[in-house]
Amino acid sequence: MGNELLVGKILNTNAHWLAKVITELGGFVKRCTVVRDNVDDISSAIEESMKRGTNWLIMSGGLGPTYDDKTLQGVAKALGRELVVDNDALKMVEKKYELMAHRGTVKKFDLTPARLKMAKLPKGSKALPNPIGTAPGVMTDEGDRKIICLPGVPGEMEGIFKESIVPIIKNVIKNFYYEESIHTTGIVESDLAPLIDKALVNNPFVYIKSHPKGHEEGISKIEIQVTAMAEESSIAKKRVKDALEQLKSMIIEHGGIIDKEDMK
Amino acid sequence: MGNELLVGKILNTNAHWLAKVITELGGFVKRCTVVRDNVDDISSAIEESMKRGTNWLIMSGGLGPTYDDKTLQGVAKALGRELVVDNDALKMVEKKYELMAHRGTVKKFDLTPARLKMAKLPKGSKALPNPIGTAPGVMTDEGDRKIICLPGVPGEMEGIFKESIVPIIKNVIKNFYYEESIHTTGIVESDLAPLIDKALVNNPFVYIKSHPKGHEEGISKIEIQVTAMAEESSIAKKRVKDALEQLKSMIIEHGGIIDKEDMK
Repeated sequence: MGNELLVGKILNTNAHWLAKVITELGGFVKRCTVVRDNVDDISSAIEESMKRGTNWLIMSGGLGPTYDDKTLQGVAKALGRELVVDNDALKMVEKKYELMAHRGTVKKFDLTPARLKMAKLPKGSKALPNPIGTAPGVMTDEGDRKIICLPGVPGEMEGIFKESIVPIIKNVIKNFYYEESIHTTGIVESDLAPLIDKALVNNPFVYIKSHPKGHEEGISKIEIQVTAMAEESSIAKKRVKDALEQLKSMIIEHGGIIDKEDMK
Repeated sequence: MGNELLVGKILNTNAHWLAKVITELGGFVKRCTVVRDNVDDISSAIEESMKRGTNWLIMSGGLGPTYDDKTLQGVAKALGRELVVDNDALKMVEKKYELMAHRGTVKKFDLTPARLKMAKLPKGSKALPNPIGTAPGVMTDEGDRKIICLPGVPGEMEGIFKESIVPIIKNVIKNFYYEESIHTTGIVESDLAPLIDKALVNNPFVYIKSHPKGHEEGISKIEIQVTAMAEESSIAKKRVKDALEQLKSMIIEHGGIIDKEDMK
């Protein structure tokens, strides 16, 4: 989340990283939302997400010490909880500034309001250690749903996610994801469409996506990505390979050429 | 929108481009949502957006000929309209395939169901010419709100947006956006926070955002971005410059160093 994304200053690499890692762990990313740095927009996005029945809501950004770091206020508002100083979070923040004072990064160690802010969590939350930066991550249970807040600085977000969240996900998700792509030449997307439809009849558990890559000298180039999720990785892989085999022979039959394969 | 974003296959460069261009035109991007390629997810996102009072809803992706191109079905469902063959869209699609048949890109010109699909628009919509690819863009008025659907292929999305949408936006938006950034060394974000608060008291019409850039040998580096929107560009610029001047002198007073300036 954050204004810097909505004014087009930076690319949303955090969403990309999270989507990739969660998918590879067998999770299903249902939606991604970017909102402005204000409490109402954050809390309304959380409320909408809860209404839709989201199991895991993972946020990134807005945990720092400045006035526009408002994620935890948004969570508190959406869940109707108070923001309270959390002892674990306070120890984590104190330790970081003690270290910075020792190194000379800050002139002195004192718990200014801006620093204390990072230790104020929605009541009942758990602080997650930040191996890189200062602001702790935050995990809040709401019934059987999890709301996870991570910093916006990519290294900090990734560090907390790997250390504290991946082990939990691995424990609850028992799915495996598999994907493979082929590149075709000489068939346009509108002629590929009915072939994909046919391949899906025989292989209903895969997802087939065509990505047009433009034309070269009037010849159409398309990437076709086939993905599957299954309880065993061998099943996911077999489903993808079966669908691809059928697709490839149909494409060749229709005069298309298979260029190269992206194997995983 | 699209699964390829939510599995982390590709970065959302379309959202980045649209946010940047719309902001530079003086528009205010309130939210960005990525959903899966299915009708219910698309229509629920549109309904939520309408409920929040969105003036312009701009979508990209899902206009092509394949089974998972479902944006227009989602729009039709959300607005309670039928999908009907639009004469302008039909002419645009026909013309593209006639040209492709002439060039030999497709074997023959015929209006297969997959091709006809791209000419079926929510009733009452306007087809927008696609200067690069095949699927037309779509503009649908719902009361005084505009719903705009653009292809997911970046060049096609940009082409239609520049040709058909930018002139409309220029006609209705009378705001100007200005931004400038400075880079500081030697002050941590939690010590910068109260200085930003002070600068905002004197300059309430700017937005100040700090972007921590990590530490180098224990020395904190931060980028500070100041933005403003105003009815005249000179006013937006003056507000940004005033806020930056105050910030810079406070940072230097606190022992920080101003590294370099990104001028626009």
